[in-house]
Amino acid sequence: MNPRFADWVNNVQETFVREILKVAANPQAISFAWGFPNPSSFPIQELQNAAQKVLSENGRSALQYSSAQGHLPLRQYIANRYLEKKGIKVDPGEILITSGSQQGLDLIGKIFLNKGDNVLIERPAYVGAILAFSVFEPQLRSIPLLDDGIDTGLLNEALKEYNPKLFYAVPNFQNPSGITYTRENREKTAEILENHDTIFIEDDPYGELRFIGQDLPSMKTYLADNVILLGSFSKTVAPGLRLGWICAPPQIMEKLLIAKQGSDMLTNYFSQCVVHQYLMDNDADSHIEGIRALLKEQRDFMLSAIDEHFPEEIEITRPEGGIFLWSTLPEGLSSVELFSYAAKENVIFVPGDAFYVNMKNTNTLRLNYTGSNEETIKEGIKRLAKAINQFMSDKII
Amino acid sequence: MNPRFADWVNNVQETFVREILKVAANPQAISFAWGFPNPSSFPIQELQNAAQKVLSENGRSALQYSSAQGHLPLRQYIANRYLEKKGIKVDPGEILITSGSQQGLDLIGKIFLNKGDNVLIERPAYVGAILAFSVFEPQLRSIPLLDDGIDTGLLNEALKEYNPKLFYAVPNFQNPSGITYTRENREKTAEILENHDTIFIEDDPYGELRFIGQDLPSMKTYLADNVILLGSFSKTVAPGLRLGWICAPPQIMEKLLIAKQGSDMLTNYFSQCVVHQYLMDNDADSHIEGIRALLKEQRDFMLSAIDEHFPEEIEITRPEGGIFLWSTLPEGLSSVELFSYAAKENVIFVPGDAFYVNMKNTNTLRLNYTGSNEETIKEGIKRLAKAINQFMSDKII
Repeated sequence: MNPRFADWVNNVQETFVREILKVAANPQAISFAWGFPNPSSFPIQELQNAAQKVLSENGRSALQYSSAQGHLPLRQYIANRYLEKKGIKVDPGEILITSGSQQGLDLIGKIFLNKGDNVLIERPAYVGAILAFSVFEPQLRSIPLLDDGIDTGLLNEALKEYNPKLFYAVPNFQNPSGITYTRENREKTAEILENHDTIFIEDDPYGELRFIGQDLPSMKTYLADNVILLGSFSKTVAPGLRLGWICAPPQIMEKLLIAKQGSDMLTNYFSQCVVHQYLMDNDADSHIEGIRALLKEQRDFMLSAIDEHFPEEIEITRPEGGIFLWSTLPEGLSSVELFSYAAKENVIFVPGDAFYVNMKNTNTLRLNYTGSNEETIKEGIKRLAKAINQFMSDKII
Repeated sequence: MNPRFADWVNNVQETFVREILKVAANPQAISFAWGFPNPSSFPIQELQNAAQKVLSENGRSALQYSSAQGHLPLRQYIANRYLEKKGIKVDPGEILITSGSQQGLDLIGKIFLNKGDNVLIERPAYVGAILAFSVFEPQLRSIPLLDDGIDTGLLNEALKEYNPKLFYAVPNFQNPSGITYTRENREKTAEILENHDTIFIEDDPYGELRFIGQDLPSMKTYLADNVILLGSFSKTVAPGLRLGWICAPPQIMEKLLIAKQGSDMLTNYFSQCVVHQYLMDNDADSHIEGIRALLKEQRDFMLSAIDEHFPEEIEITRPEGGIFLWSTLPEGLSSVELFSYAAKENVIFVPGDAFYVNMKNTNTLRLNYTGSNEETIKEGIKRLAKAINQFMSDKII
């Protein structure tokens, strides 16, 4: 056999995942690597009740094929919530239920990208977006993130130089950096984008998970139909149900529906019915309030352990929501090299390289705090601090 | 807003689905259009029990993220069943759980196809495969189906002329034609393919649904690692759970896993656990036996109504399994035109055009018998016969 693969397959960037998995297999290892929500927050009993109700009352329909666009009552719920929580008015016809918001990225890539098209992403960027888009062989151009959001000066230049079809961003508690665009940064970004045909892809998986400060306006507030929103139930209900959505204006929705049919026909309809039933019969807001409180606690444990144990030279972001911290080592130090030191201490993270296009041996790393309790977080950070100290003393002398 | 779509989007073939849906909205309409399984065969109570067990015993894990490749026990079940039912030995590592077998087509398109690559399909071909592959802009070359399978003479020529990367086929109870490749046709096809690097994609959603005659060998029996198998639980358990799989050799699996992560990270893990639990706690074979008996009955009702009411000039396939019949009108008559006559009589089908690339006003149509009971089938066929007679007398005089 001599399979002839597509070009992108031969060019795909290695993600270091295998190395991480090898260390993670050790039961002694403490992992800050993945973005798993804490399973203690899954509403298991409530979902059990919802599944019973759906199957007893409506089993024949819930187990059958259904529309490519998704369960209408669930789309109505999402539309109502946009209005209630963000003041955005959208029609349920502008919402498509996807297999996690990851599928939203695939569908967007499919309907927009020809080989060589320019796409703006953040630097660092969500690794799953880089992977999803790479299939279509665009030119990914990254714009640096600053403490207050995207670098609007460089954004402006890139828009003029590349006339990109899309600008993909995570304005709230970004993955991997934890950075949130300030109100001023959003306004400035919108002002710059207004003069371009570039569609802003606002990926917002963590938007409901703010535990400090006030919610900020969606970019759709400023740019209306030039924005596609992506959302997810993975962090507010449970990720194993694989339910996310795309919110896009009708002209784009029409094309997304064609791509959806070719991709998997429709999203798991049983799960759509179960989650909708769960949302009808329970107080989603108070459940999310509980998740926020838990996240805040975990984030605080990690930050205070870092403040106590990390050397001063290590920078760290202090997110107001979401699930990730982003750490920067002194210039010239590679977090891939640090990974070997950390592996010896049985603690793991994702080295920054995964979140850049064509950059190697970067000095950044991503830390997740949702998978662990107080004790594990403290112990893991202690181990990581030990690894950092060892690494820096080997390197800097 | 002026969205700049990818080229394929602007070239995508209209599927006539909207026209069909318009007529289907009339509650008086009898539909032979879709390939929906009969919901009376869904094991609702058994799935309810399985869902309870999974959530009570293992809720935290079943609702969490999991591996891109899918639930190992479910992959072991599928591997065992290949051995038991088809004598094919595969490792669970060669199986990837997908969001319906439709997603298998998308992933295969992703990892193999560059723009312009040659792909062989059947004529007529499964419309979902045409759509899935079209995203990647291959040259789809169709090889006619004959009563006993693919036209091996033309297949041989096409392989030499186009050196295609893939040959996509549904050898058992093909969608849309209901045709099954005979043993001799399989052997001849394998012999021809042996000398080429073309990968045979064997899509087998109906393989377990044979109600007449003996099962025939999978093409993997002859061509080993040059075959990728696609399977599905949609017709043997329930389609709303969106569970299918790809079986591919390790060298290809490695690439499929990368594409899977970019597409939706993993398939709905909760549903994977539920279906596995269902398969462990119940006799899947006797359930499938029941589905087969029901299908045979429905198929017989439809064929005998056709024999009674259709004019002699209309040809019809007599499938040994699966869910579709394929009807051919006298040459020169368009089934799209017939559709308007049928719509007036409140009966619908899918005109053949949907199943061809770049062919219009073909004289073929697809009929599904699984959605209806005896009475509806008889009434629907009577109506369709009336429409055909009217159409032919308007046209042929």
